[in-house]
Amino acid sequence: MDKIHEECGVFGIYNHPGHDAAQDVYNGLTALQHRGQESAGISVSDTEGDRGNLALKKGMGLVSEVFTEEDISGLKGNIGIGHVRYSTAGGSTYENAQPVAMRYIKGSLALVHNGNIINAEDLKHEQMERGQAHYTTSDSELIAYEIVSERIKSNSVEEAVLSASKKLKGGYACIIMSPRKLIGIRDPLGIKPLVIGKRDDDYILASESAAIESTGGKMIRDVEPGELIIISKNGISGNRSLCGARAAHCVFEYIYFARNDSVIDGIEVYGARLRSGKALSRINPVDADIVSGIPDSGIAAAKGYSEASSIPFAFIFHKNSYIGRSFIKPTQEERNISVKMKLNILKSEVKGKRIVLIDDSIVRGTTMKQIVKMLRESGAKEVHVRISSPPFLYPCFYGTDVPNSRELIASGVSREDICAYIGADSLEYLKIENFKEIVGNLPLCTACFDGRYPV
Amino acid sequence: MDKIHEECGVFGIYNHPGHDAAQDVYNGLTALQHRGQESAGISVSDTEGDRGNLALKKGMGLVSEVFTEEDISGLKGNIGIGHVRYSTAGGSTYENAQPVAMRYIKGSLALVHNGNIINAEDLKHEQMERGQAHYTTSDSELIAYEIVSERIKSNSVEEAVLSASKKLKGGYACIIMSPRKLIGIRDPLGIKPLVIGKRDDDYILASESAAIESTGGKMIRDVEPGELIIISKNGISGNRSLCGARAAHCVFEYIYFARNDSVIDGIEVYGARLRSGKALSRINPVDADIVSGIPDSGIAAAKGYSEASSIPFAFIFHKNSYIGRSFIKPTQEERNISVKMKLNILKSEVKGKRIVLIDDSIVRGTTMKQIVKMLRESGAKEVHVRISSPPFLYPCFYGTDVPNSRELIASGVSREDICAYIGADSLEYLKIENFKEIVGNLPLCTACFDGRYPV
Amino acid sequence: MDKIHEECGVFGIYNHPGHDAAQDVYNGLTALQHRGQESAGISVSDTEGDRGNLALKKGMGLVSEVFTEEDISGLKGNIGIGHVRYSTAGGSTYENAQPVAMRYIKGSLALVHNGNIINAEDLKHEQMERGQAHYTTSDSELIAYEIVSERIKSNSVEEAVLSASKKLKGGYACIIMSPRKLIGIRDPLGIKPLVIGKRDDDYILASESAAIESTGGKMIRDVEPGELIIISKNGISGNRSLCGARAAHCVFEYIYFARNDSVIDGIEVYGARLRSGKALSRINPVDADIVSGIPDSGIAAAKGYSEASSIPFAFIFHKNSYIGRSFIKPTQEERNISVKMKLNILKSEVKGKRIVLIDDSIVRGTTMKQIVKMLRESGAKEVHVRISSPPFLYPCFYGTDVPNSRELIASGVSREDICAYIGADSLEYLKIENFKEIVGNLPLCTACFDGRYPV
Amino acid sequence: MDKIHEECGVFGIYNHPGHDAAQDVYNGLTALQHRGQESAGISVSDTEGDRGNLALKKGMGLVSEVFTEEDISGLKGNIGIGHVRYSTAGGSTYENAQPVAMRYIKGSLALVHNGNIINAEDLKHEQMERGQAHYTTSDSELIAYEIVSERIKSNSVEEAVLSASKKLKGGYACIIMSPRKLIGIRDPLGIKPLVIGKRDDDYILASESAAIESTGGKMIRDVEPGELIIISKNGISGNRSLCGARAAHCVFEYIYFARNDSVIDGIEVYGARLRSGKALSRINPVDADIVSGIPDSGIAAAKGYSEASSIPFAFIFHKNSYIGRSFIKPTQEERNISVKMKLNILKSEVKGKRIVLIDDSIVRGTTMKQIVKMLRESGAKEVHVRISSPPFLYPCFYGTDVPNSRELIASGVSREDICAYIGADSLEYLKIENFKEIVGNLPLCTACFDGRYPV
Repeated sequence: MDKIHEECGVFGIYNHPGHDAAQDVYNGLTALQHRGQESAGISVSDTEGDRGNLALKKGMGLVSEVFTEEDISGLKGNIGIGHVRYSTAGGSTYENAQPVAMRYIKGSLALVHNGNIINAEDLKHEQMERGQAHYTTSDSELIAYEIVSERIKSNSVEEAVLSASKKLKGGYACIIMSPRKLIGIRDPLGIKPLVIGKRDDDYILASESAAIESTGGKMIRDVEPGELIIISKNGISGNRSLCGARAAHCVFEYIYFARNDSVIDGIEVYGARLRSGKALSRINPVDADIVSGIPDSGIAAAKGYSEASSIPFAFIFHKNSYIGRSFIKPTQEERNISVKMKLNILKSEVKGKRIVLIDDSIVRGTTMKQIVKMLRESGAKEVHVRISSPPFLYPCFYGTDVPNSRELIASGVSREDICAYIGADSLEYLKIENFKEIVGNLPLCTACFDGRYPV
Repeated sequence: MDKIHEECGVFGIYNHPGHDAAQDVYNGLTALQHRGQESAGISVSDTEGDRGNLALKKGMGLVSEVFTEEDISGLKGNIGIGHVRYSTAGGSTYENAQPVAMRYIKGSLALVHNGNIINAEDLKHEQMERGQAHYTTSDSELIAYEIVSERIKSNSVEEAVLSASKKLKGGYACIIMSPRKLIGIRDPLGIKPLVIGKRDDDYILASESAAIESTGGKMIRDVEPGELIIISKNGISGNRSLCGARAAHCVFEYIYFARNDSVIDGIEVYGARLRSGKALSRINPVDADIVSGIPDSGIAAAKGYSEASSIPFAFIFHKNSYIGRSFIKPTQEERNISVKMKLNILKSEVKGKRIVLIDDSIVRGTTMKQIVKMLRESGAKEVHVRISSPPFLYPCFYGTDVPNSRELIASGVSREDICAYIGADSLEYLKIENFKEIVGNLPLCTACFDGRYPV
Repeated sequence: MDKIHEECGVFGIYNHPGHDAAQDVYNGLTALQHRGQESAGISVSDTEGDRGNLALKKGMGLVSEVFTEEDISGLKGNIGIGHVRYSTAGGSTYENAQPVAMRYIKGSLALVHNGNIINAEDLKHEQMERGQAHYTTSDSELIAYEIVSERIKSNSVEEAVLSASKKLKGGYACIIMSPRKLIGIRDPLGIKPLVIGKRDDDYILASESAAIESTGGKMIRDVEPGELIIISKNGISGNRSLCGARAAHCVFEYIYFARNDSVIDGIEVYGARLRSGKALSRINPVDADIVSGIPDSGIAAAKGYSEASSIPFAFIFHKNSYIGRSFIKPTQEERNISVKMKLNILKSEVKGKRIVLIDDSIVRGTTMKQIVKMLRESGAKEVHVRISSPPFLYPCFYGTDVPNSRELIASGVSREDICAYIGADSLEYLKIENFKEIVGNLPLCTACFDGRYPV
Repeated sequence: MDKIHEECGVFGIYNHPGHDAAQDVYNGLTALQHRGQESAGISVSDTEGDRGNLALKKGMGLVSEVFTEEDISGLKGNIGIGHVRYSTAGGSTYENAQPVAMRYIKGSLALVHNGNIINAEDLKHEQMERGQAHYTTSDSELIAYEIVSERIKSNSVEEAVLSASKKLKGGYACIIMSPRKLIGIRDPLGIKPLVIGKRDDDYILASESAAIESTGGKMIRDVEPGELIIISKNGISGNRSLCGARAAHCVFEYIYFARNDSVIDGIEVYGARLRSGKALSRINPVDADIVSGIPDSGIAAAKGYSEASSIPFAFIFHKNSYIGRSFIKPTQEERNISVKMKLNILKSEVKGKRIVLIDDSIVRGTTMKQIVKMLRESGAKEVHVRISSPPFLYPCFYGTDVPNSRELIASGVSREDICAYIGADSLEYLKIENFKEIVGNLPLCTACFDGRYPV
């Protein structure tokens, strides 16, 4: 299906000495797999062992494909970080997989990162002027080099991370592992999510709370925008000197990226999606027999629409969960079969019905067009498409993979024309002003909808 | 999760000459992947080519793992059959993967099979007395040998299949490919499903209608119990000489095995599951705030329970779809984390609620116990478990993989004790007499619940 | 390089109970790897265990590629057989890999085979009339079925093997493993080699004595032509009822197939090759400065030529041993580079020299042409090619892979024209009458040179 | 077998635009495979394409295992460099595989390196003080960083390479690829070999001349000690400003590392080995029947010993070339079988003979002990071991992998005791003063024998 892609998920854990971290990181990354399926990596360190010996294993593919049982038991060390990555075309190489791990004058460090640094070219130029060559095209290496450069003049790695962060512009959530410490940093606007968890005496940092629970831990709180978190044998501490008054959390976490069961910046994601459906129902009511959502992205909003409108919620699709990345690509002419292999209609639920069909977004429109056609062939009387976000019009500079505007159907095509293209009876979007009822007063970055970039 | 397992799914297609079948078989098997994940195989034949040259490729794993794009384009031929297999411990080898393909006195044949032959030992002994050695322990080879033996004295392969079928006792749905023909046979009681589809002039045989649709075709009808279907350049024809008055369709297809979107013996599976939930609600009402189902097996019945009881349906679980076969096995002490990695609770939906929790069956009870515990930890006030099938008490001899009775919690433990074990507030099952309202007058095999074996 | 290919190597060992055979079979097959590099397989049985449970593992590639350490330690059983196979185009599939292992009325058996059955089609027809279908196109399955058919009416597996052997025409060396016994049989003319070895109380059967030594054992003697060898807990015994007066050992074992260090039918192979060089020198003397051989096939004969002629032996080639099967195939225009990658000239040894260049055979002549050219470019004054076998003119029906006559340069082209084609100053072959001084009175099959087929 | 290991082989080629380099590099690396079997890598650049886009592919294993045909055809660019690496325990990781490829302020570069930098720690410290973090523990990255640092203040990449080289102490032969140029540099003493070749208008740099010939090219000359070679669209040029009066070529290239057919610093390797055998014969004569060498390392010297002594040369071993890295490791008690699997005795050549047995070196002595035992068991009357190099007593700091002295049998054990340990009748070594007759006036580094380190 054509969807907007997140770039990454990050995870880190500080276990008490003697308790290996790798299996926990593996579990955490598996819980974050929806944030990136192209590559995965884990680095661990033994806080009681030799300084500077970070073990690293990374590779292309899903977490379950990259790591064997031997890999996990061979990664010895009680602190660990890990990463899953979705990668845009061209940058999909082993070298760009994370963590990045390097040895430098004060020891070694490994780093994982979710987000995008908008002043990357300037920083890279400065780094290269210092002789810091780049092996990858990733921002992770860029951030690591900033830390390395700051570390030379700093008293501690956390001080270096703080100094480095002051130079970064953009959205980022990083976890840095030194031989003895685990450090988390979130960008000053809190664009990218990062949460803190605890399991007995062990501390966890992760992109989403669901990853914490997958390891048996419990979420404590979000890392605040701009906050630096240091976890060491002395426990957990924070530094709020980069924290500001303003925040701009990425709205797409609530719309699509995050797992339903995650709680981000105080808002349960599933609840937000329910409320987006309710708002849609209120602003775009329609007389219909059933409401349904495209699995899995439209289900929660459809449930909300149903609750608010009292139109019954119905399951009308069967989704084949065995169609993975490895599916043999159909030729263009067989594209329709591709959607049919993934989604099939429960005809008895559809026949003769006027349907409200919810999804979180429309990117190219090709999949939606095919689904509407399949519904009509199954006897649907009317198909009213409702999208639980505004039209996607502007590129994201903070780490979300947006197709260029030529591929975005909303760019330069009227709502009416899109409706005609996908063959729906009506098409309506959520409006930016509705976010207030969805996430309350939580400040959001909605640049992809309105072009108002917070940085 | 611990579940009852189906053994297999079968698929066959007869395309017009010049149109390769392998990609269609691949698509069909992908749609049937839920019926077996241990091995997959495809065999094709070119009806215009040399007799006796059936191409074959099989292997261990998912369809998407066994076949590369090169494999599919290398399998040349306009008719093809394929198989997905779930295999019980010990029999999980390459040799037992299907299709079986052999050369014999009249040419060659390939065969795929779903089911179990209960007089296999007797037939195998007769075959071995004739010198027919066995490479595998599968019934497929056994059936193929019967056909080969009959073929020597028959005028056609379809006549041989018919004669062979007369000797088979049990549940079976077979597709046989000769160099020029595609033949389907279903056991006289119709225990195992087999349906006929059409796409333009091409004919399809498959375990479930969903597989037909995944190739762009449409279901025509079920193969009748005992019916033989012959597809050749002359079109499709049938032989009903083995058809009898009696039928006994496997009830577990409706409860769990088949896809929601399949229609088997005239009954849409999703509808049957909806009705099972409605029946449950009627016979076991409970005063509760929400109804929910364990994904994906309990969702449809939960929807039915909700519709009949007017207790709102709620999504209360997030299921991680990235946890596959390759997940690193947790040690026994980490078993709880295993369930947590797969299922997580949407806490806002659960807190303070009295919940009706639906699943299709309880096998060992360990997973259900853990889920009830997780719900209580998330603040559920009451958890009432409802099972959309009767207790599973008897072994199946027709091809369903049943744990032995020591592992079946329902065997020898009272309902009250199971309820206490899983920690629920109440536990109720569907009753055998309710199947009438679920599938109407369709004759069912319910031997696993009542021990009344039809053969 | 273009060479005549052997089809197979076979190995079997009967260890005392409790001592696993798989590692020994692995070692033995590695020692026989030169006889076949396409596929490898091992089957084992525990003589103290359940009857009829033969473990089997086979695959495509070299012995070291097919078997992991886990495979070997997982193959439990004190008797074992194994096979390496070179396979002609088209038949190179997993199914054709050996051993074949089957269950039949009296238990189970596994079989490995080197050779070719010339009445295979007749026997296969008889088998198919009995309903014995074929999974493979290999003679091994054919022989196994004959044994299975005879076993029904026989008192023991050895009696069945004997009866089956009476029906086989051609060259064969088979090792059969029943759950309790290891049986070897060699064709009545002794075309294919089979030797007996002993290590403490363990008995070994193998294509060549070198394989026995690689397991720490010692050769006892050859299996006689037509002899049946039975190894069981009662020790070793033989049956000579198929032994006749006549023998016709394959001459190519001495010329090329066998390892230099093997002793076959009483003749040490290296010694035979030395003597072939001496004979060449006597019948085709030449005035030259040095004698050399193409590695590795021409080295031994070159040494013999040197000893007989007193022309100094010289190393003039470096052979790159890292060019394996996986080498990226050059396009036709780069063919010359292909030879250069494999063989390079030691120029100081060649410059200004008159060279006698020995190889065991000329198949297409393309490689020899290139080598002569390389020698001239390195400054050789004269190149006199001497071939330690007669021209290869007739196909082999006993298991040697011969190119068809269109590809054989000797077929229909005069010696003078071949000499001109390869660019040599002179070209001479060994003569059939010279074999007497090479192997004494040992009766040979020389059909590939003179068309006089012994069977 | 236990042997001293070389660390690496390097190769580079500058083809005319439009002619891809990857297949040539593949062929060259295959010819250098004997210098390292742990990892392999290739980087290419298109001199007509975008600057800074070097393509890179590397991996663990043999050249033929790392690269598929698709890899080679996917590496587009007319200049290319490649590397094969033998790696010491612990450092055997993907990250340490070469080439290293990095982007820096002036574009990008890739580098391959053979040798060892003895002031690496000092340079690394300086680099880290500049903020240059290290991803690997290889000297290649170290050298690349020096070049990058110098490049900032230089007018050209060749100027930067020259400046960087001035800071390097040790033995090194590097090939550097910038987007438009191929640059070679050899350490001022010429410890490590590097040669120049030509094929039509294409230029080649390689560790050994044999690699040039494997691509169809011809050797022009050695890179002189300290010389810098620049190859660009303007042809080839050199810079000799680092060339000094002194040289110290690694003696082990002639003894063991290089291929027989290579010519290094004007000396054909095979000739040097022949002469070492002759010298051995002169200084350690013995009354014997035959001379032989352990394949392949002792063959050339044995031939020389034979020519000088007039004792006939004999082949007495068969070496199994199919025993590769993947061989299942024997337990200690099976160690003897391990040697037997690799080497077997041609008994007829050994029986009753007094043998002079030549090898190039003795490291631990365990293999030699086993071989002498095998010879005696085969009937050898006397075994006189002659080693074509002096005892190995001192560590190498220039890139040769030397076991530590505890594992070196020559360290602290008298010649007589070693002779007794290996079970020989006599044991003699070559002497350092004999090198003069082997390589003439060529200045050698013999530090591993006499501890006189040139740097």
